[in-house]
Amino acid sequence: MSLVQTGTRSPETGTAPSLRPRVVIIGAGFGGINAAMGLRHTDVDVTVIDRRNYHLFQPLLYQVATAGLSPAQVAMPIRHILRRQKNATVLMEKVEDVDKEARLVITSTRRIPYDYLVIATGAQHAYFGHDDWEEIAPGLKTIGDATEIRARILTAFEKAEVSDDAAERARLLTFVVVGGGPTGVELAGAIVELARKAIVSDFRHIDSSAARVILVEAGPRLLPAFPEDLSASARRQLEKLGVEVRLGQAVTQCDAAGVTLADGETIASACLLWAAGVTASRAAKWLEAEADRAGRVVVSGDLSLPNHPEVFVIGDTALVKGTDGQFVPGVAAAAKQMGKYAADVIKARLAGKPAKPFRYINYGNLATIGRKAAVADFGWIRLSGFPAWLLWTFAHLWFLVGFRNRVIVFLDWAWAYVTYDRGARLITERRST
Amino acid sequence: MSLVQTGTRSPETGTAPSLRPRVVIIGAGFGGINAAMGLRHTDVDVTVIDRRNYHLFQPLLYQVATAGLSPAQVAMPIRHILRRQKNATVLMEKVEDVDKEARLVITSTRRIPYDYLVIATGAQHAYFGHDDWEEIAPGLKTIGDATEIRARILTAFEKAEVSDDAAERARLLTFVVVGGGPTGVELAGAIVELARKAIVSDFRHIDSSAARVILVEAGPRLLPAFPEDLSASARRQLEKLGVEVRLGQAVTQCDAAGVTLADGETIASACLLWAAGVTASRAAKWLEAEADRAGRVVVSGDLSLPNHPEVFVIGDTALVKGTDGQFVPGVAAAAKQMGKYAADVIKARLAGKPAKPFRYINYGNLATIGRKAAVADFGWIRLSGFPAWLLWTFAHLWFLVGFRNRVIVFLDWAWAYVTYDRGARLITERRST
Repeated sequence: MSLVQTGTRSPETGTAPSLRPRVVIIGAGFGGINAAMGLRHTDVDVTVIDRRNYHLFQPLLYQVATAGLSPAQVAMPIRHILRRQKNATVLMEKVEDVDKEARLVITSTRRIPYDYLVIATGAQHAYFGHDDWEEIAPGLKTIGDATEIRARILTAFEKAEVSDDAAERARLLTFVVVGGGPTGVELAGAIVELARKAIVSDFRHIDSSAARVILVEAGPRLLPAFPEDLSASARRQLEKLGVEVRLGQAVTQCDAAGVTLADGETIASACLLWAAGVTASRAAKWLEAEADRAGRVVVSGDLSLPNHPEVFVIGDTALVKGTDGQFVPGVAAAAKQMGKYAADVIKARLAGKPAKPFRYINYGNLATIGRKAAVADFGWIRLSGFPAWLLWTFAHLWFLVGFRNRVIVFLDWAWAYVTYDRGARLITERRST
Repeated sequence: MSLVQTGTRSPETGTAPSLRPRVVIIGAGFGGINAAMGLRHTDVDVTVIDRRNYHLFQPLLYQVATAGLSPAQVAMPIRHILRRQKNATVLMEKVEDVDKEARLVITSTRRIPYDYLVIATGAQHAYFGHDDWEEIAPGLKTIGDATEIRARILTAFEKAEVSDDAAERARLLTFVVVGGGPTGVELAGAIVELARKAIVSDFRHIDSSAARVILVEAGPRLLPAFPEDLSASARRQLEKLGVEVRLGQAVTQCDAAGVTLADGETIASACLLWAAGVTASRAAKWLEAEADRAGRVVVSGDLSLPNHPEVFVIGDTALVKGTDGQFVPGVAAAAKQMGKYAADVIKARLAGKPAKPFRYINYGNLATIGRKAAVADFGWIRLSGFPAWLLWTFAHLWFLVGFRNRVIVFLDWAWAYVTYDRGARLITERRST
């Protein structure tokens, strides 16, 4: 067996002589992947660590959860993305801690020394002190979450089809999505379309199009990152599709029977989905760094940790103020820009040049609602309905990793558009039973 | 909510008046689906019961296990296949027993009366008294099995990439497939191609093309259902791809360290796959019927149970003698023919006409080995290598359920053929961790 091992590519011992600066990147989301790719022509050794083997195109994950796309269409092996980048090594490991004094990343099996560290570990669901709700109302962050949610949605219809009890059938055919941000809006729209179009001729005892989809938002409007008129438009478009929208309603209880709202109303539902909030990863704890309530690490203007210029925190894990005084939002475009920026700062430092502070450029906000329904905000122009949806479709195809995925996803969408068919309606199990 | 419920479509109570003969089909594999579709113009009520929501195109399942195709490309919701057949109802339920005197199918939640019963529950892995090996050496029957095997194969490479120990690396890069039938041959060929082509540029510390793939068969030759010269050709083609073939070697032990063969040799391996044998489903126990050692139910010439002409057993669950005196093999084509035949017998009985005994027509045997490698036996002509592979490719595309799947799978194959890429290389988890 031929083992290609250079000195700096033996992170497992930490004793081999380092010939080139070692850049360790934790997390292979939009931020981490862009940081790694930004260093592809730089004379450094890049090590990308992720506990999963795939990079996820998260903006389309809701389509996996609602049977529109297959997991492999929105995820790609990290090593495949970086296969031609010879200075990059990928390790599938779970990071446990960082020793920022000794400059070591500590995983379950080894200690990996770094000269520069980029932390891009993203965010996870937040249940605001109700972690026990996670089992009942899963959130959507990984492929595993998406196939679990898909199974729950489809199983609810299957159980309703064989139920003799009218109240139980109604409970099974009521879907509650908590949280009116982009993910909640997308999920609610996609579930109602699944029920009213894709599976409507599949059942004999139930009318799947009578399913209720209820979107609950604690704040006064949907999509708070958008201007108010687009929030109102999103609500109208959702209601036209058949979604019931409840604004200004916090959830006070989630259990197997359903959900209770702040005004005391209970909604009997067998399928609750959580899109109400995220909290940053554990990076602040690893670094013993200052963070906001959501766990985002406070960083300097160059995205590095105060007093530790060799440690960068980027993407959803970082708290960054934009030039407009607003905090940079936790969106894919911002994470990408930060990843590329961190790579640029490292290159500048190695070349002994100064680096300008990070500046977030907002190219626009897009959120999809359903078939021919979306909202788009570019500052100078606002779109909704079909033009926004067309734009959303092509923008997402364009940014989807890999030419092959783009072609296959385009064909799947074209097919679904013409036929209303959803190809991935599988309730999969982990193993045979 | 509009509930469409006719008298005969209330199997849950069993008390509603039956207006039309009730045909209950257990299992929606090739046999069950063909039985249901064969009754689509008949004045009966058809109920198809399966514990999963999908029909599986099992001949391509090994491609899911080796990252070539996605689950949704080889599986389709049963209700979707039967959505236009208005006399068919699909229930996702687990059958526990059959009361053949009272003519009831008993599931975990209800009792379903029948006038005709078709049992098409297939087969499962057989470990010949070593059921504890299943955890260590999984077999390939369901989507869950396939994604589990895919995760194990890919995780072995991931772990080898981060291992410091040469012996452990060698163990991680040794894959043992037990059983030299079509599934074992396909798996071995596909794993070696994955290692030598698709992922060869993905790693930095290991050379994935140095992975060993060992195919162990207890009998004297591979593919025993084929003529001897094609068995020999299959072996040569596999060895040319890089598979080590061990014939006449029974496995005496499987554990976490690897596998032990009858001659005492132990092979250290972290990834064992089981393709050595199948046993029929529990149908013989439900029916208290005569069965062979593999659990296959002995049926009459019209595939019905002796003394119970209203109960049919078909596909891999039935022991059927062909006109040549040989038992009909457990292949998709035979299950399809039996399903269609059972529907024809039911139609003949309802019309008061006699039914001819079942006759299996063998249109030919095909087995694929790898890229441009296969064997084909049509009796009057035998093919191997590229012509057999081309034939296999088009035959499988042709029989794949659904036009959309055919197109998408064809594009995936064409892409993989040109680029050696494998799109579905995901290690998926059940939920976020």
